This record gives sequence, C-alpha cells and structure tokens, in this order.
Amino acid sequence: MASPEPQQIGVVGGGIRGSMFAAAVRQNPAARLEAVCEPDPTRRERIASDLDVATFGDLASMIDSTPELTALIIATPDFAHREVALAGIAAGLDLMIEKPLATTRPDARAIVAAAQAAGTKIMVGFENRWNPRFAEVRRQLAAHPAPVVNQVINLNDTRYVPTRMLSWAARSSPGWFLMPHSLDLAMWLSGATPISVFARGRRGALAAAGVDTWDALTASFTMSDDSLLVLNSQWVLPETTPAVFDFRYEIHTEAASYHFDISHDSVTRYDASGASWLQFGVTEHQGRLRGIPIDMVDDFIASLGGSPLDLPDGPHGELITTAIEAVHDAAESGTPQAIAPTRSTLPTL
Amino acid sequence: MASPEPQQIGVVGGGIRGSMFAAAVRQNPAARLEAVCEPDPTRRERIASDLDVATFGDLASMIDSTPELTALIIATPDFAHREVALAGIAAGLDLMIEKPLATTRPDARAIVAAAQAAGTKIMVGFENRWNPRFAEVRRQLAAHPAPVVNQVINLNDTRYVPTRMLSWAARSSPGWFLMPHSLDLAMWLSGATPISVFARGRRGALAAAGVDTWDALTASFTMSDDSLLVLNSQWVLPETTPAVFDFRYEIHTEAASYHFDISHDSVTRYDASGASWLQFGVTEHQGRLRGIPIDMVDDFIASLGGSPLDLPDGPHGELITTAIEAVHDAAESGTPQAIAPTRSTLPTL
Amino acid sequence: MASPEPQQIGVVGGGIRGSMFAAAVRQNPAARLEAVCEPDPTRRERIASDLDVATFGDLASMIDSTPELTALIIATPDFAHREVALAGIAAGLDLMIEKPLATTRPDARAIVAAAQAAGTKIMVGFENRWNPRFAEVRRQLAAHPAPVVNQVINLNDTRYVPTRMLSWAARSSPGWFLMPHSLDLAMWLSGATPISVFARGRRGALAAAGVDTWDALTASFTMSDDSLLVLNSQWVLPETTPAVFDFRYEIHTEAASYHFDISHDSVTRYDASGASWLQFGVTEHQGRLRGIPIDMVDDFIASLGGSPLDLPDGPHGELITTAIEAVHDAAESGTPQAIAPTRSTLPTL
Amino acid sequence: MASPEPQQIGVVGGGIRGSMFAAAVRQNPAARLEAVCEPDPTRRERIASDLDVATFGDLASMIDSTPELTALIIATPDFAHREVALAGIAAGLDLMIEKPLATTRPDARAIVAAAQAAGTKIMVGFENRWNPRFAEVRRQLAAHPAPVVNQVINLNDTRYVPTRMLSWAARSSPGWFLMPHSLDLAMWLSGATPISVFARGRRGALAAAGVDTWDALTASFTMSDDSLLVLNSQWVLPETTPAVFDFRYEIHTEAASYHFDISHDSVTRYDASGASWLQFGVTEHQGRLRGIPIDMVDDFIASLGGSPLDLPDGPHGELITTAIEAVHDAAESGTPQAIAPTRSTLPTL
Repeated sequence: MASPEPQQIGVVGGGIRGSMFAAAVRQNPAARLEAVCEPDPTRRERIASDLDVATFGDLASMIDSTPELTALIIATPDFAHREVALAGIAAGLDLMIEKPLATTRPDARAIVAAAQAAGTKIMVGFENRWNPRFAEVRRQLAAHPAPVVNQVINLNDTRYVPTRMLSWAARSSPGWFLMPHSLDLAMWLSGATPISVFARGRRGALAAAGVDTWDALTASFTMSDDSLLVLNSQWVLPETTPAVFDFRYEIHTEAASYHFDISHDSVTRYDASGASWLQFGVTEHQGRLRGIPIDMVDDFIASLGGSPLDLPDGPHGELITTAIEAVHDAAESGTPQAIAPTRSTLPTL
Repeated sequence: MASPEPQQIGVVGGGIRGSMFAAAVRQNPAARLEAVCEPDPTRRERIASDLDVATFGDLASMIDSTPELTALIIATPDFAHREVALAGIAAGLDLMIEKPLATTRPDARAIVAAAQAAGTKIMVGFENRWNPRFAEVRRQLAAHPAPVVNQVINLNDTRYVPTRMLSWAARSSPGWFLMPHSLDLAMWLSGATPISVFARGRRGALAAAGVDTWDALTASFTMSDDSLLVLNSQWVLPETTPAVFDFRYEIHTEAASYHFDISHDSVTRYDASGASWLQFGVTEHQGRLRGIPIDMVDDFIASLGGSPLDLPDGPHGELITTAIEAVHDAAESGTPQAIAPTRSTLPTL
Repeated sequence: MASPEPQQIGVVGGGIRGSMFAAAVRQNPAARLEAVCEPDPTRRERIASDLDVATFGDLASMIDSTPELTALIIATPDFAHREVALAGIAAGLDLMIEKPLATTRPDARAIVAAAQAAGTKIMVGFENRWNPRFAEVRRQLAAHPAPVVNQVINLNDTRYVPTRMLSWAARSSPGWFLMPHSLDLAMWLSGATPISVFARGRRGALAAAGVDTWDALTASFTMSDDSLLVLNSQWVLPETTPAVFDFRYEIHTEAASYHFDISHDSVTRYDASGASWLQFGVTEHQGRLRGIPIDMVDDFIASLGGSPLDLPDGPHGELITTAIEAVHDAAESGTPQAIAPTRSTLPTL
Repeated sequence: MASPEPQQIGVVGGGIRGSMFAAAVRQNPAARLEAVCEPDPTRRERIASDLDVATFGDLASMIDSTPELTALIIATPDFAHREVALAGIAAGLDLMIEKPLATTRPDARAIVAAAQAAGTKIMVGFENRWNPRFAEVRRQLAAHPAPVVNQVINLNDTRYVPTRMLSWAARSSPGWFLMPHSLDLAMWLSGATPISVFARGRRGALAAAGVDTWDALTASFTMSDDSLLVLNSQWVLPETTPAVFDFRYEIHTEAASYHFDISHDSVTRYDASGASWLQFGVTEHQGRLRGIPIDMVDDFIASLGGSPLDLPDGPHGELITTAIEAVHDAAESGTPQAIAPTRSTLPTL
C-alpha cells in the first residue's frame, strides 16, 4: 500500500520535537528521512548517530546538498519559522510547521502569501486533533448538534518549561506556547471562529527568574456562534504538579457537557520523586513510536502522497497567530481587540 | 455561657434558605426565634408547625406585632432586599442579609447609607467563608505569604435551579446568583480588591425555556494586586451532573497551587437515579443542624452579642454588588467597566 | 440545656489522641476535665499548661487524688487498655476506650466481664460512625434496604505512622491499628456480623526498618448475610502519598454502589513540600475544636448524662477484637478462622 | 517490510470480539483474512458483507474448504474453546485463543498437550499486556526493582454484561470472565506466580434475573514472592456506572505505589443518557482500527511470521485456568486451594 515514490523529507530543528518528528518520518514506509538541520553540534551528532541520517548545521547547505527533498518539517523555535518556511517555499518544498505558524501576524501573512503564490502545501502542527479523545468528542458533537454555550480551557506548564526546558522562553509566552493548542481545539470542536478578544496578563515570577515574559494570561473570546470561550494559560505552576503540563478542557452545549483531563492519563505513581501522572501521548511498541504526534506526521506524509485529509492549513495557522497576537495586544492595552479574519478553512461540523 | 439576654430574631422569607436560617436561630441558645415572615400561606403554615413560631404574611405586621425583635435575617429573593432592609433599619434592627446585598448599586448604596446613618450592624451572608476548606487555605496563604498569580473560579448550576428551584430566576442570573460567592472568596483568600472587569455572556437556552436571563457569564477582573481573576458561572448544566451545583476553585501563588472541588465531597453513589455526589454542607447530628450556613448564623448571633468577629459587612456587600453589576454592564456593552470603590473593609492578610 | 451536674472526666494517655480528647472534654459545657494521666513529664507539663488541668504520672495517683471523677477516657497505646480499664471499673467509673477495645481476646473479655459485673458503661471509640458521610449512607441504606453484595475497604497508612508517629508500632500492626475501623464500619453500614475470616500477611519492609510487624494484611470475611467483605490494610505506603492515611471504602448492594474516598477531602495543594490532600476531620472555629472525634466525645458525655444514644459498646468492641485476632491467626496459620460470637449489640438496620 | 508470504488466517466466532479480530487481520498487510466461522446466519451475513470474506456455519466446513489456512483466531464463548482448538491443532494451524484458554483444567490440559505434541504455537489473548499503561509500569518496575508488597485488583462489570451482552453468562462467572485479566496482569507486572488461593463468592441477584452464576467473587492468592494479591470481580454493578466495566488496579512495592483507573480514560460526558466515561481502548484513524486488541492481533501475526516476541503462551494460559478453577473451588468449599504449577513461561523481570 506504500506509495511507489516515497516522500523525501528534511527536518529543520533537532530539539525534542524535531528529533521525534525525524524518528516518525524514518519509520514511515511512505517516506524517506533525507536530512536533519540543527545548529548545535552535540545534538547534531546525536541525531546523526541515532537516526543514521545526513545532518547539516544550516538550512542553505541542507537544501543545496539534498536536491531530492520534497518536503520540510519545521521545528525551530516558535519565533523562528518565517525564514525557514520562506526558504522551503522558495525551494519548492511542501511544509509541516510546528504550531504556532508564527508569532507575529506579518510573519504568518508572509508565509501564507508565499505558499499561496507558490502552490505550496502547508500543514500547521496542531497535534491535539490527533488525540482520539478530542476527535471522538468532535464526532459526537457533529452527530448530535446542539448550540455551544461555553468552553473553558486551562492549559498550563510548570516553571520547568520556561526556566529549564526552553532556551528561548523569553521570546515566547504562555500565550504563544500554549494558547494556540487551546484555540485550535476550541475552533475545531465547535466549528466557530474568534471575532474579538479581551485578555489580561500577569508578570513578575518569571521576570524575577530571568525570563522576561508573562507568567500567566487569560483570554475571553467573542466567537462567531455567540458562545463563550475562555483560555487560561500560565507557566509558573509548582514543579510538584504531577505532570509537567496541566490540561483541562470543558465544553458545554445546550445538550451535553464534556470534561477532559488530558494530563491525568489513568495512572498515578507515588515514589521517592513525589506524585506523578504517567503520560502516554507517545509510546513505543515493538520498536516503533506511536501516538499523537506520530499520527500527525503520518497524516502529513499521506497528504503529501495525495490522500484527501482534512488538515490544519496555512490560513488557519495565520488566523490562530492573528488571534494570539490579539491576546497579547489586549493584555498590554487593557482593551478588547478585533481579530482580522483570514479565509476560513474550517469544515462545517 | 449563653448570653443572659438572648438575641430576639425574626426571619423574613420562608423559602429553602429562610427556613434553614430560622431553624438555626431556634437551636442557638443565645437567640430566640421570635417570628417568620412569609407571604405564601402554605409555606407559612408549615413553618409555624415545624418550628412552633409566630408567622406573618407581611413585614409591617411582623415588626408591629413583635416589638421585642432585635435583629432580622433577610432571605427574600435577591432583588427584594432593599425594602425589607430599610424597614428593618428604620425599626432599629440589626441585619443579616443573604448574598448578594442587592442586585443594583443604588439598592446596595441605599441600604448601606441607611445602616451607617442608623448605626445598624449589617452582615452579608457570604457563607463560603464558613467552609473550613476555604478558611484553612486562607490561613495557610496568610501564614506563608506569596504573590497571587491567578484565580480561576467555576461555579455553575444545573438547569434545575433556574427552571424549577427558583420562581424568580428571570429577575436574577448566573451572575447575580453565583458570582457573588466566587468574588467574595477571591477577595477573602487573596486580600485583593477588584478594580475593573471585562465580561461576556451567552443567552438562548434559558430564554427558550421561558426564563429570560443569561445562560452563562464569564468575567475577567483587574485586581488591586495585579493578579488575574476569572469567574465562570452558568445555569444550564445538564441535570445528570452529579450535584446540583458544580464548584471548582483554583488559586495559584508564586509558591503554591490549591485546587478545590467543593461539589465532590468524597462520596459517589450510583443507583437507579443515576450518578450522584452526596453533599455534606449541612448535616444533622443528634437532632441539631450543623454545617456551613448554621455556623454563619451562629456567628451573626455571637456578633450581635458583642463578640468581635471579622464578618462580611455592608460596605463589602456593596462592593460585591457594584462589581457584579459591572459584570452585567460589561457583558451588555462589550467594554471593560471600572468598579467604583467602597470603603475597604477587608482585613489585610 | 447543660446538665446540672456536669460529668467529671479524667483522660488517661496524653498523646495525640488523649490531648485532643482532653480538649474536647474541656470545651463541653456538660463536662468538667478533672485530670489527665500521662507518664512522660514533657508531655504532662505541656498538657497542664495548655489545658490548665491537674496532671498525674500514674493512674493510681490520679484516681486517688480525684475522687470526684465519674468517667475515664482511655487513650493509652492499643495493647495497654486492660489494666487501665479494670482500674477504672474498680473505681466505679464509666469508660470511653479508644479502638480497639484490646489487642487480645482475653483482654477484651476481661474488660467486658468486669464492666458487666460492675454495671459500668463502656463506649469504644469507633470514631468513623461520627463521620457524616458514613452516617448518611447508613441512613440511605436503611431507608432503601437491598441485600449487600460486597464491601471492599482499603485503609492504609504511609510508613510515617509505624516508623515515626507511633513508638509502639512493633506491638501493633496494620491489622490492629487500622482494620478495627474498617470492620466496625462494615458491620455498622450493613448490619451484618462476621462469622469467619481468611487472611494473609506480608512482612519485610517494616522489619528491616526495625519495626517487627506485618507490612500489610488482607482479610476476607464470611458475613452473617452472605455478603463478601474484604479488608486491606498496610503500613508501608510511600511518604509522598498525598495524605498520611489512604481510606477508600466501597459498598455494593443489589440496588446501589457507594464509593467513599475519605482521604481526598476536596482540596489538593501543590507546593515545595509536594502534593497534599488537606484534611478537615478536625477543625477549629471561633476557638473551639469541631469534627468527628469531638462529636464522639460529646456523645459519650451526653450518654453519661442519660441521653439514649446508640453507641458502640463493650460487647461490640470485644467482637471486633475477636475478629481482628482471628485475622492475625489466619495470616499466621494460612487457614480460615471461626469468629466466636459475643452478644450482638448492633441495631437492626 | 511485509512478509512475502502473508499469514492466512481464519476467525472462529463472529461476536463482538471475533468480528473485531477479523477486521484487525484484514487490515494487517502481513496477513490475509481467509474465512470466518459463525453459526448464527444473521451475524454471518453481516460479517460477509462488512469484511468481504468467506464465511462458514461450522468449523469442519471452514477447515475443509480453506486449505490455505495457516492459523486460527478462536473467539468462541469461554467454555467452548477445547473442541475448536483441538480441531485447529489437528489441521496443523497455529492458534490465538481468547482468554481464558479454557474454563476447566482438563480442557486447558488437553489443548496444551495437543499443541505441544503437534508443535503448534498458542497465544492466549490476555490483551491488557498491550495496554501501554501496564507495559510502561512493568518496564519501570523492572528498571527499578523492589519487592512487591501487595496488589489489589478490582475488575467489575455492570449487570448489562451478564444479562444482556452475553448469551452464555450462566456458563461463565465474574471469575471466568474477568479474573483471568487481573491474574495475568498481576503475574506479568510482578513476575510472581500463584501458589494457592482462598476465595469466597456471593450469589442471588443474577440467579433472580435468570442467570444462575456468582454475582461476585473475591480471591486472595499466596504468591511465589510472598506478596499479597487480592482480586475482586463482580457482575452486578448498577447500569448507571459511568463505564460498562470498572477496572481499578493498584500495586505497591517497597519503593513505589501505582494506581490505575483504567475505566476512567480522561473524558467524562454528562448528557440526557447520564454520566459516562468515554472509552478509547479501540479507536479508528483514517479508516483503520487501532488500539489494544488490534496490537495484540498484529503481534500474533508478527509472531507467526517469526518475530521473537514475548507472548502469553499455552502453559501460561493453562496456569491461569488452573488458578481460576481453584478460585471457584475455594469459593464452593470455603477452604484454600493449592494451584498446581505448569511449566513457568514467564520471563524474569
């Protein structure tokens, strides 16, 4: 069933996510992992050795030396997508770009405009759509439609993420790192789009730790269906929180309420290190990775091969970037911000 | 240890809350339940028979016929506090008034002004302060002070409350009925006061059921300590929700996170009627009522007797009314609303 | 309403429980705390100072010097009840004895026989009957009777209890310290009595820590109503467990299932010390202790004053001791053990 | 990567499980679904149409007409495995047999003896080993070995299963239907084997509903490592239980405690039908089934193709059958039962 001509894929960024995406490509029979680009030599060597793949320290070399490439997976830091994406588009490559598409509206606009001009496929990595929990509830909501009353989405991280996991946290925020997931799901489950947003933020704890960004943001959206949407995201949870992230989602319609507690995945451990909720978003079985982001990569590859899948595309990514930028603007200004529409690409539920 | 001159108390309003308050007064050795005022004859007879107390159909008669009264407990519908309170103040009676103090700022202002002119004591029934859970966490926060990052408070009811429990739901809202509890706790635990508020609301389901009010409201407050405060309240949860109310509270400081799940009080029952979380806010032991609202009434009585307790007073009630009115104004207008300060009465943590 | 002649009470044992019982007596208007007996001089002085009460280092002195005593509360270590109880009975005093009544059947028999001969009242401190959760479910089960299918009761402690809280853990076990609570509740909720028991035990971890007793015991009872009853108790939970005890109870009838999670009392805290479930079994309000064991002491005092209460009496305590002894015998022998009946004192549900 | 000669597989039994196994075979590129055997004509036609596969009403016809078969998957009722397995062995086919291998020790013995004589591969379908939660905890326990203190495993079903889902419930029991899962996991996670068992049972509710079997069983095992193992299984949970099964597993070692709540898989729904925990054990993605039993079938097929996997084999299945038979014998007799060993096939942790 594998396509006769496998997709020939390069991965840009060899951090946690990029390495995983590379491994996912490598095990997919419809694709060939051609190259990985990562500036840090230590990481680069580890990837070369673990995945037996050509590696490069800069993108231009990779593109020049790997003419067989058909697509790129971009896993650079959130703020560093534009240059890579434009280079990929210029080289005629299709793109999977980690969420958010970009962290400024001009960056998002530039990527989408270039892609549209070049006929490039762009998929933005809103991976929660591959979580069977959200997919099933979306299916149920579509099968038994009822007006949405409200959604409340809490997606937080412990301090570990901005202070030790990410080197570039000061150039991001809980808004840029976490809220794109929440907003994408809110749109995907409800079928509604954001019209305007009010937001507030709190600073202090991270700044004192040398990471000059928001500790926490809260955003209240006006949606196209008049439902309420509240997003709360913060980056300063205690490190004794039983998972590194805390993801609680609730959606209430006129007919049903659904509560998701994504970070609490059925298994609790108590040992000398404290209390933990074990995580099963990515697992290994018989030597192969499986799970949510792996399925996302597989679908990206299938889509490159022509499968007609419903994937989060560039204009959708641009809308999310526009909306999250409006969250930050609202938090700075204290006034509600309109969210400029992009071409709607959401399927009707 | 009982005071030599018991407080002589009348209760106005013989619904669920008024009946319970009357029973609480009756069992308190420092008080005498003198009279209950309730317009509905059926309820009136039941109270007279259950509590062996004089009952009246209107307040004027009760006040005229019961000159020994020293205090009133007011448990009329939320919007119907002003006239009763002013009559009580005019008669020289101290007052316990169910939350919210009033549902318009002019009503609240009028009550507080009259009370201040007359030297009347007013306590507003923010009963959650008597929940040992909130009291203990407040104590811990005061003992180990750390800046508050944010609070997220969800306090909801199933449709049962607006459609079948309350006859006057169309003159109230999830904002008036539920958010005063949330805001009072947010202030009491953090020691901060609300400065301004943005809010949004959703209508439709209750209106279709003949109760013309908001289905749901969400409010985002600017607080005096720059922390974030989000209140979510709705009145249209499915009736299969395991408790008639749904109360989840979280407060995050720079040092700790606390999560309360007040509606889930340790016992779950599954039987032919569905899944239920049993409630233990008020229980009976050896023929006496106990629990949160009973403790509140006892403290009101002790305060009348001169005990120097820290109770939610009139100006605090006025501030909450002002803030909740601002929530509704913000939801109508789509713009943030300033909250006019009243004399702060909150103890410093 | 206080009795004209207050009960004059002495407390034997000034540890955690004895101190609390003494404080409970002291605040009860129907009682007078006359004396506390505690061999340790440091503890004795603290109690004398905290409670402003006469203290003694040995029981004989206390009884000799306090002729006005009418009752004793016995809170000595589990295995040290017999001598104290017999001395109290000989002195004509009524008794409240911490559970278990005794840790050998001969001890229990001797206490009950002496009490019956002397006409002494004995109440055994099975305090969970004063937890409103268990009391309410018992009431529901009685109101809607249906045959019990099974009960599964897990009551565990972290290692802290046997290794650091109790000095005498090696003379007790998870069976003696924990299972009496479970068995008492199982009988009280179901109305059934234990006929025989099979049990197994595991040793090793506590012995290695210098406390030579069982780490864990499991017991399977044959009950008089043919329902199943399984008790699991252990003393070696990790100290990162969010409460020092872990108490999960489930009872299934042909009509309903009830699940209790007693250790998870609605509030979770995450801070530098880890994850905790805050406990609210005993709280303080306006300078007075309240809660489950306080209510128990109050009811003991009311019973001494003549109130006809349904309390766990001596023969019931003897039956529990007999049954728990059989648990240990079964675990040692590997064979089911019959449980000799005592006079049943359980009310029919 | 698919084997050049796909495994040619027949499925016996076209109920819920058999249909799913057939679909799993059909989508596996290393296998060919050759035939399904199902006596009921309605089911047979549905399978033929859904899966586009040859179907047969009896096994002999299927075997005769499908000489290309290399393996059978047996999903007949629990008590009806022997005849099918022996026929398959006689025909030279390898076997995957749903758990339990058999419901009498002689049946199990006969199957294993015949398979050993013929050199047949047998895998028994203990599917929970493919649940990544159990697999991960097993891995953690192996990586950080510490003596097991005890395991308590509750695996129950609502009345729906014995009264409406299974036509043959009276020939099974909660012991035969549920405990094999629990015991297999207990052995797999701990590496210990059962030596003897005490058990008790309760009858009445199902008998009154016309299904003459145990309502509930509880079993206490002596294990080879001296740890405690308690299994509780019942079939009469209220149908308002939020999942059709209730699976709570805890394992405590001297170093850590793990709690699994398998039936509560992160998503709760409240709607007109009540409260539900959505289940994600098997899901569909891009037209393909995925999840625990699908992985099991895939590994069976890989094993047929020569992959050296560690799978639950015949002697292990025989030991489980022996142990569960001993559970029933103990419950009938009231005396502990020894469990005769079979060749141990468990890998050392």
